[in-house]
Amino acid sequence: MNTWGTLLRIHIFGESHGRGVGVTVDGLPPGMPIEEARIQGALDRRRPGQGRLASPRAESDRFEILSGTLDGCATGAPLTLWIANQDARSRHYERVRAVPRPGHADWTAFVRYRGHGDGRGGGHFSGRLTAPLVAAGALAQTLLDARGVAIGAHLHAVGGRAGPANVLNVAAMAAVGASELKTGHAELSEAFTSDILAARKARDSIGGVVEFRADGLPVGVGEPFADSIESVLSHGLFAIPAVKGVSFGAGFEAATLRGSEHNDPWLADEEAGLKPGTNHAGGILGGLSTGAPIWGHVAIKPTSSIFLPQQSVDLRTGQATTLELTGRHDPIIAIRAVPVVEAVVALGLADLLLRHAAQAALADSWPPRSV
Amino acid sequence: MNTWGTLLRIHIFGESHGRGVGVTVDGLPPGMPIEEARIQGALDRRRPGQGRLASPRAESDRFEILSGTLDGCATGAPLTLWIANQDARSRHYERVRAVPRPGHADWTAFVRYRGHGDGRGGGHFSGRLTAPLVAAGALAQTLLDARGVAIGAHLHAVGGRAGPANVLNVAAMAAVGASELKTGHAELSEAFTSDILAARKARDSIGGVVEFRADGLPVGVGEPFADSIESVLSHGLFAIPAVKGVSFGAGFEAATLRGSEHNDPWLADEEAGLKPGTNHAGGILGGLSTGAPIWGHVAIKPTSSIFLPQQSVDLRTGQATTLELTGRHDPIIAIRAVPVVEAVVALGLADLLLRHAAQAALADSWPPRSV
Amino acid sequence: MNTWGTLLRIHIFGESHGRGVGVTVDGLPPGMPIEEARIQGALDRRRPGQGRLASPRAESDRFEILSGTLDGCATGAPLTLWIANQDARSRHYERVRAVPRPGHADWTAFVRYRGHGDGRGGGHFSGRLTAPLVAAGALAQTLLDARGVAIGAHLHAVGGRAGPANVLNVAAMAAVGASELKTGHAELSEAFTSDILAARKARDSIGGVVEFRADGLPVGVGEPFADSIESVLSHGLFAIPAVKGVSFGAGFEAATLRGSEHNDPWLADEEAGLKPGTNHAGGILGGLSTGAPIWGHVAIKPTSSIFLPQQSVDLRTGQATTLELTGRHDPIIAIRAVPVVEAVVALGLADLLLRHAAQAALADSWPPRSV
Amino acid sequence: MNTWGTLLRIHIFGESHGRGVGVTVDGLPPGMPIEEARIQGALDRRRPGQGRLASPRAESDRFEILSGTLDGCATGAPLTLWIANQDARSRHYERVRAVPRPGHADWTAFVRYRGHGDGRGGGHFSGRLTAPLVAAGALAQTLLDARGVAIGAHLHAVGGRAGPANVLNVAAMAAVGASELKTGHAELSEAFTSDILAARKARDSIGGVVEFRADGLPVGVGEPFADSIESVLSHGLFAIPAVKGVSFGAGFEAATLRGSEHNDPWLADEEAGLKPGTNHAGGILGGLSTGAPIWGHVAIKPTSSIFLPQQSVDLRTGQATTLELTGRHDPIIAIRAVPVVEAVVALGLADLLLRHAAQAALADSWPPRSV
Repeated sequence: MNTWGTLLRIHIFGESHGRGVGVTVDGLPPGMPIEEARIQGALDRRRPGQGRLASPRAESDRFEILSGTLDGCATGAPLTLWIANQDARSRHYERVRAVPRPGHADWTAFVRYRGHGDGRGGGHFSGRLTAPLVAAGALAQTLLDARGVAIGAHLHAVGGRAGPANVLNVAAMAAVGASELKTGHAELSEAFTSDILAARKARDSIGGVVEFRADGLPVGVGEPFADSIESVLSHGLFAIPAVKGVSFGAGFEAATLRGSEHNDPWLADEEAGLKPGTNHAGGILGGLSTGAPIWGHVAIKPTSSIFLPQQSVDLRTGQATTLELTGRHDPIIAIRAVPVVEAVVALGLADLLLRHAAQAALADSWPPRSV
Repeated sequence: MNTWGTLLRIHIFGESHGRGVGVTVDGLPPGMPIEEARIQGALDRRRPGQGRLASPRAESDRFEILSGTLDGCATGAPLTLWIANQDARSRHYERVRAVPRPGHADWTAFVRYRGHGDGRGGGHFSGRLTAPLVAAGALAQTLLDARGVAIGAHLHAVGGRAGPANVLNVAAMAAVGASELKTGHAELSEAFTSDILAARKARDSIGGVVEFRADGLPVGVGEPFADSIESVLSHGLFAIPAVKGVSFGAGFEAATLRGSEHNDPWLADEEAGLKPGTNHAGGILGGLSTGAPIWGHVAIKPTSSIFLPQQSVDLRTGQATTLELTGRHDPIIAIRAVPVVEAVVALGLADLLLRHAAQAALADSWPPRSV
Repeated sequence: MNTWGTLLRIHIFGESHGRGVGVTVDGLPPGMPIEEARIQGALDRRRPGQGRLASPRAESDRFEILSGTLDGCATGAPLTLWIANQDARSRHYERVRAVPRPGHADWTAFVRYRGHGDGRGGGHFSGRLTAPLVAAGALAQTLLDARGVAIGAHLHAVGGRAGPANVLNVAAMAAVGASELKTGHAELSEAFTSDILAARKARDSIGGVVEFRADGLPVGVGEPFADSIESVLSHGLFAIPAVKGVSFGAGFEAATLRGSEHNDPWLADEEAGLKPGTNHAGGILGGLSTGAPIWGHVAIKPTSSIFLPQQSVDLRTGQATTLELTGRHDPIIAIRAVPVVEAVVALGLADLLLRHAAQAALADSWPPRSV
Repeated sequence: MNTWGTLLRIHIFGESHGRGVGVTVDGLPPGMPIEEARIQGALDRRRPGQGRLASPRAESDRFEILSGTLDGCATGAPLTLWIANQDARSRHYERVRAVPRPGHADWTAFVRYRGHGDGRGGGHFSGRLTAPLVAAGALAQTLLDARGVAIGAHLHAVGGRAGPANVLNVAAMAAVGASELKTGHAELSEAFTSDILAARKARDSIGGVVEFRADGLPVGVGEPFADSIESVLSHGLFAIPAVKGVSFGAGFEAATLRGSEHNDPWLADEEAGLKPGTNHAGGILGGLSTGAPIWGHVAIKPTSSIFLPQQSVDLRTGQATTLELTGRHDPIIAIRAVPVVEAVVALGLADLLLRHAAQAALADSWPPRSV
């Protein structure tokens, strides 16, 4: 299924080389301004054809809104946003159907959809579906703004090279969001770039890690067990093509530590009562927000489409064959994933904030209980 | 919310130091045998008080079934399973309410539930809630057996020390499932043990990584986008207390590779048509199963309850204080998490298999389409 | 599936002649008092064995709470409530399995559950499952009280004899809630009683209609399309065994009217701005509340278990046979359905109120727009 | 929220006088033919401007498919269908915003959406949203065809005049589906027509009842409790604007009967084992199908838009005013509701059939249990 969310719900549709891609966003508060420039900005940050680190595909990604707005504001009815495809060159993908590409969903989707899927360019499984996701995320960010919550992401690692964790706040991430590399680790920019260009030169690709962060979430947002902040966000993050790992706070590093190193001490705080002295927990304890920034990492595999010869099978003959892809492909997906991760985190937290608002409103009917 | 699943749905309830913990499992196939010994075996593998690597808490974890069975088989109506608490010593937790423990949900739950939560021993946020989860997972495993799908997990890493990834199949994991360490990395057993004992001796704790695997899943199970295998499993895995990271296949390692290293080549296969030559993808492409084993890693933080003095705040005075925990606490949670991870993977895949069965049954009405 | 609700969710379990019946209620506001007397009162109003209009089954329906409370208040964690079965005499039902009873789910459940269902006394399909529903409804009513919403129901019709529609408010319904007939139509009490006794004397049963009402719901609660107030409430009401029809406001009568008769004129109202001059709409327009009382009717079929000989088939032989039921059966279910209808309406509206609270809280971030 | 369905899910969007209306249908089986003529036929039966019994609005209702198909078949990815608005004359609705129309959602939506809703012609609350619903229903009917299930509906009553219940099968309903009256009660056609024309002449409108039916559903489809056939179908049916009542089988009539009159006797049946001798139950017992036709009634209120003067309030002044509507309005909605009811029943049963297929597939792993 292609729906996600409880009180703020998205429904993604479309194909890479069909008529276009779109999303319906349900549950937006009536009267919320639709910031078209913000949506376009997010789409621009995601789209290909940007500089030497990306593929030269010239997709303009202009969106139109089909429903749910009036005079520039959300009406509260479902908002459907549509991005027509313009520069899809199906011929590059002709051979895909017969010879599944390593690292792609060609074969699994062929079996799952019994040969009826639109396999051109990945079809519904294409990274192009992240365009409407990014647009929906921009809407969620407007909603979060109203509650003082800001979301950001940046390129944290390329190949084996990573910067220090959780040293950038959202403002710092935003400052580099439109740059070519989208990394806040200025000291690594040069190395990141040369690693990417080396991969490209080798007709290969390279993986990376995106770091995300949310500033301003109040204490106690989230649900126990099944709808913990981590459960909700990871559900959405793993829906992004090419994501292979998701962690919160110290993440897999936490597994290497002792409790005395990992536990965040509690400090007295004038405003919130308590706050953690460090933030290895990633702003989450028991699935609920601690009031400290939410942060974590998303591992992005290297682009599956590489120009080196690869081993596959021709489904028409059942014989082994060598596949040599042409076309336009980014040497690294992680850069383009930055605004997508941001979008998913925004959508997930906006949904949890709405649920929190319901609980808070009703709970006010009875007095809190002191220690 | 405490429900998880679409066609196979669980609803967890209970508290660590209340009357007990339980789960309702909805959607079990009528006629499926309820293997009580299997359930008890799974609970026994999870429960505390097992040897020197664990806390000496003597909780027998005897379950009773309140509904949903007749003559040893599932009726198809909701099956509710209840585990009464026996050895809960609330006095150890008396101070918790006033002085939040680092690494625990004491403070976040206090704010979220406005002081009304049952904070004794973590209450509803306690690791004790994983007992009913494990029982529900045992039921899911019976269901998966009928489809030839086997689920396993084992201790993959302790502290910074990890074995080689994806070298054990489910049978090998099962063989060590009842051992004290629950690791299939025999060559590391001694080192793992001495690291854990060192942490314990230091009144500290240590983190670890659990590896999981599913053998036998056919090609094409899963959903695109929001209900990808990764989305569904990570949703459940992050509901387990102490989980800080989830990855599939090469995971965060994938981010360090080039595409030519990471892509799994396609080989011709007599039975399935195609199969991947390697399995960096963790058995999943495009959110759908490739037919190769599903595998991945779950990072477990070090036990938050340590016996070293820790910094906190007394909520009654707002003043900083030093917290020294007593009681019974495992020096490592990762070992006890092994059967929990297994249970969650079983529940998630059983649900996706049911959804797959529905699709397959209907799709049969129209011919497949060849390449 | 046996779950219902979005932010306030119930999960029903148990069997008529198994160990007991229960419900998990998820999403209760922390700190909400658990009014045990109210729960017991609701259960007492529903249970059998009350006077000459009911079956003499002596089921005491004592409940116990397994989780989710502390010191008399909801903790916010799932509250599980359990009612053990005491007076189930399975021998009355021995023949049921082989000879399906007309009007019961014996045959449909036999097929659906492939013979594995617990058919004793209807098993999971029994009206006994409405006991936990009623208990859950009592919890929802405490929640609604805090928002000034009151829910009621009463016996509106017996056989073909009905009182005037929508003449009782909730207070008037409450006043007769504990009476034997549970009808607010005092002028019909005698006729209702004699019709029921006549049916009983004839070893037969009789149908009836329950009227429900909600006072105090503010304007604008509900959702368009799929989660309209009518959609949500009818979903729950049709889950009650024996319900064959649900209508809101003028209901099926509306279909006989002209628009000029049916439309409720709008009158100016100091407090709310507008209010309808009549209430044929049942307090709902476009799926949203108008501020006028919500009201409607629920058609309850005659008790399916009658003592007259009935035609059926012996599944062991495939031959026609005559079935003569013994045991204890109410001559009318509609009376016992009164508190059940009340409970379902309370649960549905409480859930919609929680969703409304979320929307209201967020929408406040932007100014409303005037006419 | 505007989504409905578990394994077959629709998401409705759009506004009456905005750019258009649409629907995303998720969960269609890959390879299912997209019968465009069937979709257009269903839309044509629903659209206005058809003869003297309807409004003269000339809306052509041409649809286009934005995603989810390839070479005339469903791909299995979400299918989005879009119907652009063409003949929307907003000027008729100018006064609506300031003076809420009786019987419409103008006021409730104004409050719920804080004045930001698109009120033109009812906006998202307009009956125009039933166009995409009808299109989605046509897709569901193709799916049901493959399982031998046929869905129909016809005009059963106008004003107080009703034909005999459950005398038409689906084929007979289909035969009159394209006629002006859409009624299978030939003997009442003249009376229905003259009643409608009399209402129209009086500048008024009139209510009606739609009867629906499903032939061919096997025994045992449905779920206990919350997802009973009645719960699922009524949820969808009450989402249709103007529906005030829904009943199954004898419905409200059942409430007037004795058990001996209402119970359907069981007869031996060679093929199915058992079948009911009569069908007062509407083909459903315990929420599950009996194998007999599913049938029921839907009460449709008289068109709210009438040309007689009506009492309302001018929101700008708070003063009472008289509203005289102009524009194009059907004197009866019930006729146009016929294909909409059909569509909803098709969507609901297709979803339940998919769920049933999943259960059946897995349950096959264990032997059934005999009586």
